[in-house]
Amino acid sequence: MKVAVMGYGTVGSGVVEVLIKNHDTIVGRNSLDELELKYILDIRDFPLDPNSDKFTKDFNDIISDDEVGIVVETMGGIHPAYEFTSQLLQRGKSVVTSNKELVAQKGYELLRLAKDHNANYMFEASVGGGIPIIRPINNCLSANEIIEIAGILNGTTNYVLTKMIDEGMSMDEALLRAQQKGYAEKDPTADIEGIDSGRKICILADLAFGKHVFPDQVYTQGIRGITLEDVDFAKDFGGVIKLIGSAKKLPDGRICAEVRPSIVMDGSVLATTSGVFNAILVRGNALGDAVFYGRGAGKLPTASAVVADVIDCARNFGRTKMIPWAENDRDFVASNDTLSSRFYIRAYNVNDDSLAGFDRALGIYKVLERKNQLPDEFAFVTEKITEGELKEKLGGMESVEIKSLIPVTDY
Amino acid sequence: MKVAVMGYGTVGSGVVEVLIKNHDTIVGRNSLDELELKYILDIRDFPLDPNSDKFTKDFNDIISDDEVGIVVETMGGIHPAYEFTSQLLQRGKSVVTSNKELVAQKGYELLRLAKDHNANYMFEASVGGGIPIIRPINNCLSANEIIEIAGILNGTTNYVLTKMIDEGMSMDEALLRAQQKGYAEKDPTADIEGIDSGRKICILADLAFGKHVFPDQVYTQGIRGITLEDVDFAKDFGGVIKLIGSAKKLPDGRICAEVRPSIVMDGSVLATTSGVFNAILVRGNALGDAVFYGRGAGKLPTASAVVADVIDCARNFGRTKMIPWAENDRDFVASNDTLSSRFYIRAYNVNDDSLAGFDRALGIYKVLERKNQLPDEFAFVTEKITEGELKEKLGGMESVEIKSLIPVTDY
Repeated sequence: MKVAVMGYGTVGSGVVEVLIKNHDTIVGRNSLDELELKYILDIRDFPLDPNSDKFTKDFNDIISDDEVGIVVETMGGIHPAYEFTSQLLQRGKSVVTSNKELVAQKGYELLRLAKDHNANYMFEASVGGGIPIIRPINNCLSANEIIEIAGILNGTTNYVLTKMIDEGMSMDEALLRAQQKGYAEKDPTADIEGIDSGRKICILADLAFGKHVFPDQVYTQGIRGITLEDVDFAKDFGGVIKLIGSAKKLPDGRICAEVRPSIVMDGSVLATTSGVFNAILVRGNALGDAVFYGRGAGKLPTASAVVADVIDCARNFGRTKMIPWAENDRDFVASNDTLSSRFYIRAYNVNDDSLAGFDRALGIYKVLERKNQLPDEFAFVTEKITEGELKEKLGGMESVEIKSLIPVTDY
Repeated sequence: MKVAVMGYGTVGSGVVEVLIKNHDTIVGRNSLDELELKYILDIRDFPLDPNSDKFTKDFNDIISDDEVGIVVETMGGIHPAYEFTSQLLQRGKSVVTSNKELVAQKGYELLRLAKDHNANYMFEASVGGGIPIIRPINNCLSANEIIEIAGILNGTTNYVLTKMIDEGMSMDEALLRAQQKGYAEKDPTADIEGIDSGRKICILADLAFGKHVFPDQVYTQGIRGITLEDVDFAKDFGGVIKLIGSAKKLPDGRICAEVRPSIVMDGSVLATTSGVFNAILVRGNALGDAVFYGRGAGKLPTASAVVADVIDCARNFGRTKMIPWAENDRDFVASNDTLSSRFYIRAYNVNDDSLAGFDRALGIYKVLERKNQLPDEFAFVTEKITEGELKEKLGGMESVEIKSLIPVTDY
């Protein structure tokens, strides 16, 4: 079987490296006849690369070569990745990708296309980098009804929050540090604003709940508003603030999906997940909670997930493995107003009246304290309440200035 | 496809429950025509069971029924599970099991038999209960060269150690509590002495390193010798004592496998793994570290893993998925004498001379303290040293009484 790689960036070059370095282990352990890299597609020149004889700038070289059965798409973005992938699948070639944007946007359609042409479209590397999560949900947990899936899906924001929590660093300083270390891009918007996590929770929700969910259906809030005050108050409550992407089944059969800073209590695996690591929790009706933990990004971890998919495609050539989920249905995703939890609230301009108001309206579960607390600063955790009711009640308390409002998770 | 379940104990009855309760989800999500329970084999009578019409005491009913394509073996033990499984596979029926004893002892042979008859022998539930681990190692991590695999593989011992660590309970009291809660059997020997963990690390090593490893090749030490003194000293070092099963690739291509109490440093996922939970760490050359966490036992979690295998067998009927590993080779497993790490040592009868001797012979990395420490009690962590050298050096220090010797892990 011959393989082509499209896009020779960080992940693409990692795929080439793993395919070559682990070649003998891969072919031997998986009883494959052969798995040989034939083309690397990139618009740039790499004259000094040891694989320079394999480079092409012409997509037609790949699609018209009948020897090529598997194509790795590590270009990123929607165009032309979408057009290339569609054409390849229509020719019965399998496509493996790490492109979460494309899967989140077009996953249903491309899986359908793969099935119609007895090919495979696989994307283990699109969520959680090297952590096996797509295939376990698809295969290993197939006896469960999945109730909820939630996780730390973005290493950049988790690195920033970890620096704030462990070292009391400001967000700006932590972000700068992340950029210096190569963990954050020059423009970190997609990470910091939760967009990257939003794409990933869509893919997980698609798999877990069987219908395509678009990123614009996910309530998405990044970590911009989180301050060291919040970090300290959370610590007083015995927890840490993490950016959590989650999707949950509602009693009426619909789901709720969101990305937002959330408090995770100490002692849970998600609270222990520090730095650039990711962790994904799956709650099944038979399984209970299982957590998958590892490096959520990075050249070789991500490449190893891509190559595992390539191997699976080789072992299942001409036979579709992934079952497409159903197409999107706008009504399937409900607003998060009906979700119920405790909430952490940091407020200013609080006097005895508003304090009594909080207790009457929301119920004060615990008052929190921090060093150097300001005189009119008040932080507490509410009793359990739905988000809708919470917003309504807070709407009636105009004199108080709410600076932070963060749900407390139960995992 | 018709299914039979052999052995209606905790796991077997859980399998029946999951097959029935999640039937529609299972059939729908996996595009199966049908998946119907036809027989339950047990020597006992269950007259009030809602599935009482399916019971049989005769194995011939199952093996001679051509409609039955998949058989679940949840009988446990080697005999007659081994004979039944062999006969079923020879008839081309797939067998799914949670029987770690049988897989650890006969896995190579039964996988071989399955392959020769285009059937499947699957055992996801044999390690880590409901946690997906067998299939991820086999498929998702196939692009990695696995360097090490290590984990908390037994919920009973982890529950006992957690009670000692968190509540200062004595081992006997904690064990009694575990028995009252149903986490430990009346005769807890197989758990406490590390035998159960030993079987599981064999299965993981088979998969990760590609050759059958027998339980008698694994250095196995249970938790009997662990005291609250050790727990306290470990805490002073910033870690916790866990029963760790591990298998590691040596530079010469051989492997080393052991089960023993080990110190895991706080902040690692394994240290966070409390109570009856299990966690398994896989270290790959491309992936880095990944951890799989969840309930390592229990009726429904384990049943959900069995049923996931049943579904996989149904989707791959007539087509062998699991590649058999190679047969056993006594030379493949090396003694653990060449493994190098820091060691925690608790010693008595220590005077200034022996103290200087420790420092000269082993190097004292850190002296540890605890409340109510005895006058002649000395606990410390050595510099990095191989186990062989350590034993040799300690052999020369006859006046000192060594009560505990526990390696410090690097995960």
